[in-house]
Amino acid sequence: FITRLDMELAAIEKGGYDHFMLKEIFEQPQTIYDCLRGRLDAGKGKVILSGIDQYAQQIMNAQRIIILACGTSWHAGLVAEYIIEELCRIPVEVEYASEFRYRNPIIHKGDVIVAISQSGETADTLVAIENAKEQGAIILGIVNVVGSSISRKSHAGAYTHAGPEIGVASTKAFTAQLTVLTMVALKIAHDKGSVSTERYMHLCQELAAIPEKVELVLEKADEVKALAEKYKDASDALYLGRGYNFPIALEGALKLKEISYIHAEGYPAAEMKHGPIALVTETLPVVFVATKDSYHEKVVSNMQEIKARKGKVIALITEGDTVSAAIADDIFELPQADEIVAPIISTIPLQLLAYYIGVAKGYDVDKPRNLAKSVTVE
Amino acid sequence: FITRLDMELAAIEKGGYDHFMLKEIFEQPQTIYDCLRGRLDAGKGKVILSGIDQYAQQIMNAQRIIILACGTSWHAGLVAEYIIEELCRIPVEVEYASEFRYRNPIIHKGDVIVAISQSGETADTLVAIENAKEQGAIILGIVNVVGSSISRKSHAGAYTHAGPEIGVASTKAFTAQLTVLTMVALKIAHDKGSVSTERYMHLCQELAAIPEKVELVLEKADEVKALAEKYKDASDALYLGRGYNFPIALEGALKLKEISYIHAEGYPAAEMKHGPIALVTETLPVVFVATKDSYHEKVVSNMQEIKARKGKVIALITEGDTVSAAIADDIFELPQADEIVAPIISTIPLQLLAYYIGVAKGYDVDKPRNLAKSVTVE
Repeated sequence: FITRLDMELAAIEKGGYDHFMLKEIFEQPQTIYDCLRGRLDAGKGKVILSGIDQYAQQIMNAQRIIILACGTSWHAGLVAEYIIEELCRIPVEVEYASEFRYRNPIIHKGDVIVAISQSGETADTLVAIENAKEQGAIILGIVNVVGSSISRKSHAGAYTHAGPEIGVASTKAFTAQLTVLTMVALKIAHDKGSVSTERYMHLCQELAAIPEKVELVLEKADEVKALAEKYKDASDALYLGRGYNFPIALEGALKLKEISYIHAEGYPAAEMKHGPIALVTETLPVVFVATKDSYHEKVVSNMQEIKARKGKVIALITEGDTVSAAIADDIFELPQADEIVAPIISTIPLQLLAYYIGVAKGYDVDKPRNLAKSVTVE
Repeated sequence: FITRLDMELAAIEKGGYDHFMLKEIFEQPQTIYDCLRGRLDAGKGKVILSGIDQYAQQIMNAQRIIILACGTSWHAGLVAEYIIEELCRIPVEVEYASEFRYRNPIIHKGDVIVAISQSGETADTLVAIENAKEQGAIILGIVNVVGSSISRKSHAGAYTHAGPEIGVASTKAFTAQLTVLTMVALKIAHDKGSVSTERYMHLCQELAAIPEKVELVLEKADEVKALAEKYKDASDALYLGRGYNFPIALEGALKLKEISYIHAEGYPAAEMKHGPIALVTETLPVVFVATKDSYHEKVVSNMQEIKARKGKVIALITEGDTVSAAIADDIFELPQADEIVAPIISTIPLQLLAYYIGVAKGYDVDKPRNLAKSVTVE
């Protein structure tokens, strides 16, 4: 006899997941691994990025690196700013592509422009690099879609190899961007000698260990689901972090906005006292990205300040951090990781939080209202 | 007989205004004039800033200017970035002082650091410049309180001369910061020859005309009050702008947050399509800072996109701009001004909007909850 196959094509493509977004979140151990494969040899301490080899010398000698991007990619750029400045000792400026292109920006011959875009078709980023190219800048494209316009207009670049991203809210493309940008920074820093061999080797190993740690986080997805149930009716939220995790706070807030329509806003944690703390009440969830790093002590003190004003603190912390756990209302523990690579891990529970809240509210998380996958008009 | 004087000292100090914040908003024609007095001679095209003369040559030759600030002062820094890059052709980076100081920032000898702080005691900014000074940077302080710590630790600087600011939400100190920073940019650009004499003379005149134009805006305060009545029950708001007015959108949103506890968020207008537009519904007020400038056409197109999604558009426009007026639900007309000085004017109605909404909601606008006037702890 014949059993009717009651499965739509979309369901098959979703590989058993309810939504593309969830599938893509869970793909990240694999996509990050794919991104590293053939490029990072942690044992030998080798980073091979053939797409930038020809320009590696010029990037190494750049007086200034300008990162151009929009939206989620802009957040990846902010993380990269911190990493490149720390490891390569080259001043980095991150600009919104839409702002940069309409200004009369200062570009000197030999300046390096890094353009980040999942689709490689983001209109503002594309025009911005075309203008910069005419002024003698070297363009390095960090793009997901092979053969896309930005990749074709770039002098050099590295694909993120995250595979097609269908969910409108970017997830796996973002962690792949962070992974590639970290490899670029490691390569340049090592070539330039601005990082000690010991630290370089350690960071190569830390990067290689990321897929496994992301897997560990995903195994605890149900913990995030429980948090989502608890906080889904919030009307607003603040996301705070410092240093490498400050852009992750921005990205976590953006995900929640996009998927759950809750007005979440990210800030560097110290800025809260300059205004946003006025929003804190007993019902406001404040999400801290508070993993153990060189900023940790200060973040803990910010958490205490929020608690003193009766706000609800949800903290992403490093496993075993009993100090933070004692302050926060809710915690989610993350595996230990060097602060340079930690953002790739700490972004995962924030993607899940946005996803589960969106689903709990009954929204179409793969196609949030008013949004398009790529912004290809100006 | 004796009439008992039923007026408290505070009421006398408020000079007849209900709150210090309102008094300080209305003082701005005078405080901006005080800031310009003896420094700007628009007729002769002279900008005299004796506090920076000794270092003018070094600022002119700087390879890079780094602006450090927090909160409202950080927004003044963002406006200054656009103005200095445009007029002086020196790359500028604006950093949160709290982020800069805990990093291992890249500072080269001779880099110029501009520290902006109303109180001159902002802890993060103070420590950041102390560190930078040790690394050979030249520190330029833009401070309101005479003799404050930041002014004493700076090599050079210019006071904003706005007088004591009592309201916790900064208003007149912000416009004075913009005024001083514009003068600094004009002086450096003129000395350096990076601006044409014609444009320089024009901008001197435009700056001299600001107090009068601010006065014209304040005469229409009742129009803003009516807008406040109409929108006071909003739970959220977006503030959007491009170019010189993008930081004014951030500042307008911060004021509303601080005073009315409405969750307002500012964005560069083009970024809305990369996420925030998901928040737009028929009840969301979206405030556009949309004066006539080189970005205007694109801002108009963003307004149309918000209207297409049924959002409520409140637009600050240049008088006579019938195109924008036809799109927006509500408008507030501003006097014409060159785009370089326009931010000083466009910020005024946003201060008033926050004030009137705060008052309409019955809040203590001079002492908003959870906030201190100066953040002197880390």
